[in-house]
Amino acid sequence: MADRAEPPAMRWWGWGDPAHPPALPPHALGFLDATVGRGAHPRPPVALGRVSLPPGRLSGERLARLRDAFGTAAVRDDRHARVLHAAGKGYPDLVRLRAGEPGEAPDAIIYPAGAAELRRVLALCAEESIAVVPFGGGTSVVGGVAPMAGEHRSVIALDTSRMRELLHTDALSSTVTVQGGMRAPELERRLAPRGLTLGHYPQSFEYVSLGGCAATRSAGQSSTGYGAIAEMILGLSLYAPARQIDLPPLPATAAGPGLRQLIIGSEGALGVIGELSLRVRRTPAERVYEGAFFREFDSGVEALRELAGEHRSLPDVVRLSDEPETRMSLSLAGAGGLKRRAGSALLAARGYGGGCLAILGFEGTSEDVAVRRRHALGLIRGLGGVAVGRSPGAAWQHSRFAGPYLRDDLLTQGVIVETLETAVQWSGLHALHRAVGEAISGALGRWGTPALVMCHISHVYETGASLYFTFLARQHADDPIGQWRAAKTAATDAIAAGGGTITHHHSVGRDHAPWMAREVGEGGLAVLRAAKDELDPTGIMNPGKLFPS
Amino acid sequence: MADRAEPPAMRWWGWGDPAHPPALPPHALGFLDATVGRGAHPRPPVALGRVSLPPGRLSGERLARLRDAFGTAAVRDDRHARVLHAAGKGYPDLVRLRAGEPGEAPDAIIYPAGAAELRRVLALCAEESIAVVPFGGGTSVVGGVAPMAGEHRSVIALDTSRMRELLHTDALSSTVTVQGGMRAPELERRLAPRGLTLGHYPQSFEYVSLGGCAATRSAGQSSTGYGAIAEMILGLSLYAPARQIDLPPLPATAAGPGLRQLIIGSEGALGVIGELSLRVRRTPAERVYEGAFFREFDSGVEALRELAGEHRSLPDVVRLSDEPETRMSLSLAGAGGLKRRAGSALLAARGYGGGCLAILGFEGTSEDVAVRRRHALGLIRGLGGVAVGRSPGAAWQHSRFAGPYLRDDLLTQGVIVETLETAVQWSGLHALHRAVGEAISGALGRWGTPALVMCHISHVYETGASLYFTFLARQHADDPIGQWRAAKTAATDAIAAGGGTITHHHSVGRDHAPWMAREVGEGGLAVLRAAKDELDPTGIMNPGKLFPS
Repeated sequence: MADRAEPPAMRWWGWGDPAHPPALPPHALGFLDATVGRGAHPRPPVALGRVSLPPGRLSGERLARLRDAFGTAAVRDDRHARVLHAAGKGYPDLVRLRAGEPGEAPDAIIYPAGAAELRRVLALCAEESIAVVPFGGGTSVVGGVAPMAGEHRSVIALDTSRMRELLHTDALSSTVTVQGGMRAPELERRLAPRGLTLGHYPQSFEYVSLGGCAATRSAGQSSTGYGAIAEMILGLSLYAPARQIDLPPLPATAAGPGLRQLIIGSEGALGVIGELSLRVRRTPAERVYEGAFFREFDSGVEALRELAGEHRSLPDVVRLSDEPETRMSLSLAGAGGLKRRAGSALLAARGYGGGCLAILGFEGTSEDVAVRRRHALGLIRGLGGVAVGRSPGAAWQHSRFAGPYLRDDLLTQGVIVETLETAVQWSGLHALHRAVGEAISGALGRWGTPALVMCHISHVYETGASLYFTFLARQHADDPIGQWRAAKTAATDAIAAGGGTITHHHSVGRDHAPWMAREVGEGGLAVLRAAKDELDPTGIMNPGKLFPS
Repeated sequence: MADRAEPPAMRWWGWGDPAHPPALPPHALGFLDATVGRGAHPRPPVALGRVSLPPGRLSGERLARLRDAFGTAAVRDDRHARVLHAAGKGYPDLVRLRAGEPGEAPDAIIYPAGAAELRRVLALCAEESIAVVPFGGGTSVVGGVAPMAGEHRSVIALDTSRMRELLHTDALSSTVTVQGGMRAPELERRLAPRGLTLGHYPQSFEYVSLGGCAATRSAGQSSTGYGAIAEMILGLSLYAPARQIDLPPLPATAAGPGLRQLIIGSEGALGVIGELSLRVRRTPAERVYEGAFFREFDSGVEALRELAGEHRSLPDVVRLSDEPETRMSLSLAGAGGLKRRAGSALLAARGYGGGCLAILGFEGTSEDVAVRRRHALGLIRGLGGVAVGRSPGAAWQHSRFAGPYLRDDLLTQGVIVETLETAVQWSGLHALHRAVGEAISGALGRWGTPALVMCHISHVYETGASLYFTFLARQHADDPIGQWRAAKTAATDAIAAGGGTITHHHSVGRDHAPWMAREVGEGGLAVLRAAKDELDPTGIMNPGKLFPS
């Protein structure tokens, strides 16, 4: 226990470190005024004491029994714990929390100390018809940890933060086995002295648990190079009310259907991922992050598609902002000295004025980085791109986890900001990019709050790419959730109609569940339901998520 | 139809082209006499007319109804068709077929012309309690197409050879969509004029259907570079008696559990893979296959492990034979001029006399091949290996699909030859290599037929590698199947005990089904059974495979 750092504290009303200073630069207010507008007055979050919580539904007697079973410190029902576990970090979550009206909260939070306690919690909850919401870092942006009781009498959050041991390191096999509650930064801290890294960096990196990453089929910012979590997991254990599945680490197998991949992405609705074995890599000797500019999104996409075809030369990080996103990032942050370095006037003179910024990141041995950089930059130049040096790369690295902090500040300013993502085959990418943008703009226009819609490609594959949309608008004063839902629905309908997946890395949760039948069909849903019935016959596991109601 | 080649003919009693000349070189008989021995007299297969078939269990009336429904040519129950679909190509299959005693045969063979007919066949069979054995290329070596009726009144083989259309080519997305009965060579022929390749080359390449590859979670000889079939499949459709699941091609998704990976490896026990979308790549401009020698297996393994750690530099084909396999291949084939080129005397003088041969294959642009070759050969030299030029690579390429033909000839000589494979983390590889070898030797020794056991690493991964064993022994005259089962059981027990998967690419079928509970646990099996019950409630799909009885 001595070598385990405590998980970091998290703002109950928003994202991240409670001591974090405001993230929105002062000149951003002018940008907002000139574009989407903002609220008449700042709207800070209410004080914790003013948050309205529903009364707990667990009797004193039942709580006492839980405390007898698991220890007093392992069963909490105090205000702070209930509020912290009342929601994830999606836009509607934060709107409700900041207003002091989360609407729902777990009746208690249980912190099992290990696998044996985890099994006992699940058995007890199945017996007593208590819904269980697995809670790792609590960073879901799709309602994945919403404390919904479903058909049950009450609901607990099952917080995995005490299950965070590094269980085994097999250096010869580049494999580590951890408990599901291990946080990503903590694993990197433990691996660093051995010259190893996992290389999984979702934007929520500072808080995510690895069990949560597995349960949500997470991708990180470096997943083009390191693979998404699904490609890193060699084995794992699922603890479900009726069954346990233990799959040992294997480099590969042809022994039937891919059960590892069935558990990955199960979002707490099939059980809790108690342990997992992960592939690790050598810490890269060299990291180069740099920028490139394209005259327009289309030519940038074409360059990325070509680059993806030469899959071995791909950078580890590949991103390409469309024109609106490039414009905003240059307006707000100067793209990390891009103006100073390459000179926006010069770029404009060469026809790149309204262009698109790409970020390319290379990690590896210096030889490997040199070879891939030479190849990628050569290809990009050949397709009309221009390399603009390392400043944009450094700026991106510096702010790669900053988005959620900015969101908190924008919410204070009365601005709705939301992100959503998809992936699609290259042949459908342009049409989908356009359709989703129009869907969001149309929906928010109808609410009288014109939107700024931006997009970037966040990951490339040989056969397609992800599209990551960000939109801003003035927050509707009376019904910010209705406003959000209108935009989200329009966007997701457009994604499903355009051949995209309803989520590339945010997962399904509560928010995307209504579209699951369009994603996997009634047949696919029926198989998932059959698996759930087998593992969780009384349906206590994470009600309301993954499956459409 | 005009541009679709007919699937190639296949020997009913063995492997491959009926016109293929004998494959065993004359000097191999001396090698056999000096090692494991052989039968007193050659034992050729019986004539087709002498094969004893069980009487068909479908009434004339029922057959007539089937022919009404699907056409006369699409419903066969003649001797040749029944014998051809009576077994796959595993060792016990061939022993039984050659003796004219297959023991089982389908009552009829139905050849649906497309998805609509496929659905009708399944509906009709579910209604009439007829078991359905999906049959693609019929190349299973683990009893995957054994015509078992299970609890049902009769059994048909569902031959997908009429479902072999190339449905769609999306060149921009490097994706093709084919029907499940499309054969691998036919797809390569269709892709070649467009400068594209799938790059999936199992040893059974000349006959396999792509639906069969998907259903058996197949890996090919180039899968270190091109990925196994599971990594190539972007979307697919499963036709099951009670449900259909259609998953469109996507480059990536985080929408819940991995249903694509649940269908891949379903071995016909959940349904039939009617269509699939596959990632294709540019035909490599350059292909270099070459040999390297290591003083002993251990140092070769260490070099491959290091190479795998630098995953971007990995060759597309990486194989390393242990000492016995190297010795045999040099004895039998001279390793493609290795003796002439590098000189076995010279190698011996340098300490590589009893060494181990590795084959490295590089495919790609000339720049890419040059970079990876330089890196790999440098690393290998640094770890005590010696490059021995392209002759061994050419020899391997020349004979890469020859193994099954050799087996036929060895069977004629009264020699048991069997292969089996596993994959394991690097840390467990040496112990497993030893344990499986000892298990096979011990088992066959107890039958009074001392074995020659050989092994090679056929695929490497960052965290482990596959081990592919071949063993030879004099065939037991009275009970060749019992002899085989003893060796197979000992080997698979050793694999399961040593942390290996029960199959790296041969799949589960009938032969490995008894070990599935050790592979995925009772919990894993319960989930697979739940999925089967949902898709195939009357249990007609491929009884006796995948699931332990």
